[in-house]
Amino acid sequence: MNGHNTPIGIPAEIRRRFAENYRLATQDKDRLFLMAGDQKVEHLNDDFVGGRVATDDADPEHLFHIASEAPVGCFATQLGLISRYGMDYKDIPYLIKLNSKTHLVRSEQRDPLSLQWQTMEQVADFVRYSGLRVVGVGYTIYPGSEYEAAMLTEASQMIFAAHQLGLLAVIWAYPRGKAVGTREQDAHLIAGAAGLGACLGADFVKVNPPLNAQGEMEAKLLGEAVAAAGRTQVICAGGKETSAEDFLQRLHDQIHTGGTAGCATGRNVHQRSQQEAVRFCQAIHAIVVDNKGVDDAVKMLGSKT
Amino acid sequence: MNGHNTPIGIPAEIRRRFAENYRLATQDKDRLFLMAGDQKVEHLNDDFVGGRVATDDADPEHLFHIASEAPVGCFATQLGLISRYGMDYKDIPYLIKLNSKTHLVRSEQRDPLSLQWQTMEQVADFVRYSGLRVVGVGYTIYPGSEYEAAMLTEASQMIFAAHQLGLLAVIWAYPRGKAVGTREQDAHLIAGAAGLGACLGADFVKVNPPLNAQGEMEAKLLGEAVAAAGRTQVICAGGKETSAEDFLQRLHDQIHTGGTAGCATGRNVHQRSQQEAVRFCQAIHAIVVDNKGVDDAVKMLGSKT
Amino acid sequence: MNGHNTPIGIPAEIRRRFAENYRLATQDKDRLFLMAGDQKVEHLNDDFVGGRVATDDADPEHLFHIASEAPVGCFATQLGLISRYGMDYKDIPYLIKLNSKTHLVRSEQRDPLSLQWQTMEQVADFVRYSGLRVVGVGYTIYPGSEYEAAMLTEASQMIFAAHQLGLLAVIWAYPRGKAVGTREQDAHLIAGAAGLGACLGADFVKVNPPLNAQGEMEAKLLGEAVAAAGRTQVICAGGKETSAEDFLQRLHDQIHTGGTAGCATGRNVHQRSQQEAVRFCQAIHAIVVDNKGVDDAVKMLGSKT
Amino acid sequence: MNGHNTPIGIPAEIRRRFAENYRLATQDKDRLFLMAGDQKVEHLNDDFVGGRVATDDADPEHLFHIASEAPVGCFATQLGLISRYGMDYKDIPYLIKLNSKTHLVRSEQRDPLSLQWQTMEQVADFVRYSGLRVVGVGYTIYPGSEYEAAMLTEASQMIFAAHQLGLLAVIWAYPRGKAVGTREQDAHLIAGAAGLGACLGADFVKVNPPLNAQGEMEAKLLGEAVAAAGRTQVICAGGKETSAEDFLQRLHDQIHTGGTAGCATGRNVHQRSQQEAVRFCQAIHAIVVDNKGVDDAVKMLGSKT
Amino acid sequence: MNGHNTPIGIPAEIRRRFAENYRLATQDKDRLFLMAGDQKVEHLNDDFVGGRVATDDADPEHLFHIASEAPVGCFATQLGLISRYGMDYKDIPYLIKLNSKTHLVRSEQRDPLSLQWQTMEQVADFVRYSGLRVVGVGYTIYPGSEYEAAMLTEASQMIFAAHQLGLLAVIWAYPRGKAVGTREQDAHLIAGAAGLGACLGADFVKVNPPLNAQGEMEAKLLGEAVAAAGRTQVICAGGKETSAEDFLQRLHDQIHTGGTAGCATGRNVHQRSQQEAVRFCQAIHAIVVDNKGVDDAVKMLGSKT
Repeated sequence: MNGHNTPIGIPAEIRRRFAENYRLATQDKDRLFLMAGDQKVEHLNDDFVGGRVATDDADPEHLFHIASEAPVGCFATQLGLISRYGMDYKDIPYLIKLNSKTHLVRSEQRDPLSLQWQTMEQVADFVRYSGLRVVGVGYTIYPGSEYEAAMLTEASQMIFAAHQLGLLAVIWAYPRGKAVGTREQDAHLIAGAAGLGACLGADFVKVNPPLNAQGEMEAKLLGEAVAAAGRTQVICAGGKETSAEDFLQRLHDQIHTGGTAGCATGRNVHQRSQQEAVRFCQAIHAIVVDNKGVDDAVKMLGSKT
Repeated sequence: MNGHNTPIGIPAEIRRRFAENYRLATQDKDRLFLMAGDQKVEHLNDDFVGGRVATDDADPEHLFHIASEAPVGCFATQLGLISRYGMDYKDIPYLIKLNSKTHLVRSEQRDPLSLQWQTMEQVADFVRYSGLRVVGVGYTIYPGSEYEAAMLTEASQMIFAAHQLGLLAVIWAYPRGKAVGTREQDAHLIAGAAGLGACLGADFVKVNPPLNAQGEMEAKLLGEAVAAAGRTQVICAGGKETSAEDFLQRLHDQIHTGGTAGCATGRNVHQRSQQEAVRFCQAIHAIVVDNKGVDDAVKMLGSKT
Repeated sequence: MNGHNTPIGIPAEIRRRFAENYRLATQDKDRLFLMAGDQKVEHLNDDFVGGRVATDDADPEHLFHIASEAPVGCFATQLGLISRYGMDYKDIPYLIKLNSKTHLVRSEQRDPLSLQWQTMEQVADFVRYSGLRVVGVGYTIYPGSEYEAAMLTEASQMIFAAHQLGLLAVIWAYPRGKAVGTREQDAHLIAGAAGLGACLGADFVKVNPPLNAQGEMEAKLLGEAVAAAGRTQVICAGGKETSAEDFLQRLHDQIHTGGTAGCATGRNVHQRSQQEAVRFCQAIHAIVVDNKGVDDAVKMLGSKT
Repeated sequence: MNGHNTPIGIPAEIRRRFAENYRLATQDKDRLFLMAGDQKVEHLNDDFVGGRVATDDADPEHLFHIASEAPVGCFATQLGLISRYGMDYKDIPYLIKLNSKTHLVRSEQRDPLSLQWQTMEQVADFVRYSGLRVVGVGYTIYPGSEYEAAMLTEASQMIFAAHQLGLLAVIWAYPRGKAVGTREQDAHLIAGAAGLGACLGADFVKVNPPLNAQGEMEAKLLGEAVAAAGRTQVICAGGKETSAEDFLQRLHDQIHTGGTAGCATGRNVHQRSQQEAVRFCQAIHAIVVDNKGVDDAVKMLGSKT
Repeated sequence: MNGHNTPIGIPAEIRRRFAENYRLATQDKDRLFLMAGDQKVEHLNDDFVGGRVATDDADPEHLFHIASEAPVGCFATQLGLISRYGMDYKDIPYLIKLNSKTHLVRSEQRDPLSLQWQTMEQVADFVRYSGLRVVGVGYTIYPGSEYEAAMLTEASQMIFAAHQLGLLAVIWAYPRGKAVGTREQDAHLIAGAAGLGACLGADFVKVNPPLNAQGEMEAKLLGEAVAAAGRTQVICAGGKETSAEDFLQRLHDQIHTGGTAGCATGRNVHQRSQQEAVRFCQAIHAIVVDNKGVDDAVKMLGSKT
């Protein structure tokens, strides 16, 4: 923690609370391993059953099982879900994902709009009455949507209010909509989205991995985004899985070639069985937080991955 | 009641009130028999006159007659209607249905939008001044509607506020709209809707019975939804009536094969005469709350059903 | 007054004020003769000049002249108009019509939307500072409009707030919009609208007279609406005038055959000269409030009608 | 002042302030000469440069020069402009025009929508802190616009709040939009708009001069509007200028034939040089306030008009 | 400072704070050199990488480096970005740009809408808790957009609230939208936008440089805008760069021929390396604030420009 991570404009006593939440989320290493668990809304049940998805994943408690045993920096999901499991998983550092939408209406039909679910007063009440370790809040913006303005306003007000409560603010920034079309993973546009996250005042901005002209992920393309985000730290999704080893290699590249400050991983974690998921998280943690190499991380996966 | 039914994030003194309301609504058996009576808005007068509908049903007081004599866990209807009959039916456990729309505008014309009718401050005032046994509130969401965002925000804020008042929150979750088309009763989509209810923090989520490829109800298809909802309990509508016996068999299957925690029944109850409706409710109660078999339940119907 | 007319959920001291307003508006007979005077917005100047319209009607004060001399239960018009004449007509029981729209935009162009003009805080201030006998508030809903949701929310919040102030709430319920088309005066749809008024918690719901298959008014068709509305009392417009005698006969039929609890009359009253209008109101009052027959009422019209 | 000019529903101490503002604006003669200066938004710079427009008019201070030297009842313009010149023109009676829109988007593209710029709390603060003689507020409504509902709600709330602050409320009522088409200056429609202003509770309603079947202004056509507005007083624009003499004759006709209570004049005043504009205002004042004849007024114009 | 720069309608103690902020921003010379740094949202990363853009510009801190070393009157950017760098750049006079949108959705697809990001209460908290020298706030309006009304309301409320906090208000006024089409840089339309800024009560209005019939910038065309804005001072962008010398010549012309009160410069500054950017700002400062000639200013650029 270098003192640049706490935004300015917060009362002194709240700054201490913010710093504590920051240390907790980044595990004292200035790196964020965010376990993303908002897909039960974003993708409804598509990510949780079928194909190679572990049967454990059908039950939402699977997410809490993993988050409580694995060394994640924070587990991001909706407040409602936390309100139903938090009493049994008090040690998880939570990040409340404040807006979510389903994927039913496609951009071809109507540009995406995702609005805030709880007010910040409700968030504050929840933190107070639950006694949980809530380290922050999250919000998805869709730059390029015709409804962009509504989301930018909600996001900026939410970030400011979160900081006043001592909470971190993480922005999921996904260019999308008819104006964006197929450029959703264009490196330059993603850099723009990352810079936008910085202008909103986010602590972390989550972006999708940019693709090169061949449609392949290329870690060095993240450099533009990391630069554009400045002191707002960039975290990146891992992309579609090929194998655990490939995933970890890509993650290592994103951090060491791309310059990202961590990762946000969802399906790649929770679609595994409890045991495998925890091991996979340990491997991710090794790379992200402990700065280990890919080989060391792979060893943590155990025999079957 | 297993301690998992009270959400976290509520002041201690309110938790007791919530637990009391939960026990009342679930009749100390962790099962919910919700009598749905919001159709006077949702379907205007279509459900209340004509065909085989008992003439009793033409008068809204019929709903209160039934609810006061039958062993329902709660009777769900609009606050306005309760405000006109509650003084004479003080022992009914009420669930205030907070949003409703008519069925006049079809999805082909415009995607569904149903907004909250009373503020939570008004609900709190109503509970205080009426002295009625209001156990909870209800809200319908339409995942897949172009207006989904407005309803998800209202629903999530309402659920949080309800819990802060010690009230249960029940979500009616119906995928609908041009993006959903004919998939309204697709099992996977319904599971998604049930999981969405969990993420909103609902205590119960009411879904329509899923249909198999042949367009027939199949109780085991509910399993995905029940799993996806986790600690949020799933209740299911009975579908169109064929006979009382068939209805009860289906209900039994939904609970014992599908794993649901109760039912929400409306037309199947109130379209009968007062006497028949009460007997029918007793039969439903036998299955849902007393965990009886279908035969035992059928016996309670008396000679004519 | 039978005790069913005061809704539940109101503080005790306010209940007394409500009961007093109810008695005043229903003239101690549980029947409502509402003089409707909101047409200067709803129809602009169309109803007030030309053809057989008395020249008196060109001046809005004509409405106050009539309402102050005729035995109406309440005179419904916009707050703004009351604010300019009320000081000279302090004995009229007023009902503030809280929303209004012009008829310029037809449903073919855009579905109807009519929004609340004053907040309930402003209504409360107006009642307090004016010292007028304001007995209630009114609001028009258009079930079937694409903007139905906005109006149902405003109406339900307004009704609750009105009751908390001890004021009656009257709903004008007119199915309208592209989804309704030519069915605006369909008896079944009107019954649906009346039941919707009950679910909103209205004290009275004003509907248009239903037409039979031949497009003619038929009083017995009102029966479905009266039943559907339950304890919310139905009042009906008189329809287009043929002669005063016909009007009174129809009104008598609506009450004694249709079961309505009064009438809402506008143009049929104010398009007459002051003297004729007052006599006509006396005849209406005879039927509605004093439960007289048509012959007795006709006698009150004097020689020229 | 006849006691009918102060609306009912205002606390006693505020009534005195209102009466004082009324006397100031109507110059103790119950007639209003409103100098309209909101065109810098409504018409952007079109009215202020080019053609026969005096070069003085390029500078907004020209409006204040005129208003401070000419015998106007009030000068209506946006709060922002007053905030920049008011310190040097403390004796002008101001009327704050609270909504304005540009003319860039035509009705053919989209129906007009003009929303309130400052809250009434901001208006109250401005009055208190500026120490200026603010006599009232103004608002434009467009009956017939698809966005009519938003403007009627804002206007009615604004009028009520203005009266609670002791301020006059003037409504600019212009039928407009696709539903109105070419009927903008139809006498019957303008009468409807005037009556609508009365229902909103306005003190004055400004209408455009109605045209006869030949498309010419005809003062007697105003009679319907003046009658329809009742105690809300009608003021009228002068229409396009032909010559100063013609303008004054028309104004005299509007008052003495049409029955209006004053005028709202903008371009006809400020497009002249400072000296001419002041003289022209003196001539208008002679007719409107001093009830002089046209000949007397024309003499005040001096040699060159 | 001539006393005309502080708007009326502000409490006395706040007027002192406003005057101090005005002196700071205008460097005691009544001229404003505003360094515009809101492009990371408005143009995403397009302005910050590629082509002749200095590599320094990839990092948002570059903006703060320049603003802290160069003699700018204020540095305008989003609150979020200030919150992350302000602790290290405490001496910069900041202007918080309160609304921003991306350029992804083009006017051909949908007219522009840019909404306020933080509430004025949040701005006040930020100023208090950050201890930074925040001199004002900024907001972009798009006259001619179909969403103009929303932005004019936000802008006017923001300006009033800013003045109540002692902050300057700068309006970026860009005619845009389908109704404007290719006339975005029409001199007469820009003059209209400048006058609109005055009616909103802005202290400064930033406009684009008008083009003549040949599509070329011509400083004297600014005269209409400067006149129309009255006491609201006009600042102008420099347009596309050809060379630093040309830029400075144009700026000099804008001030001395066009009559503007300063400039708003963004890309022309920050696309240079740190050293060049600071020198370029010194040259701008020489012309804008110190009223030097172009030759003197050019000398400050050093050898390579």
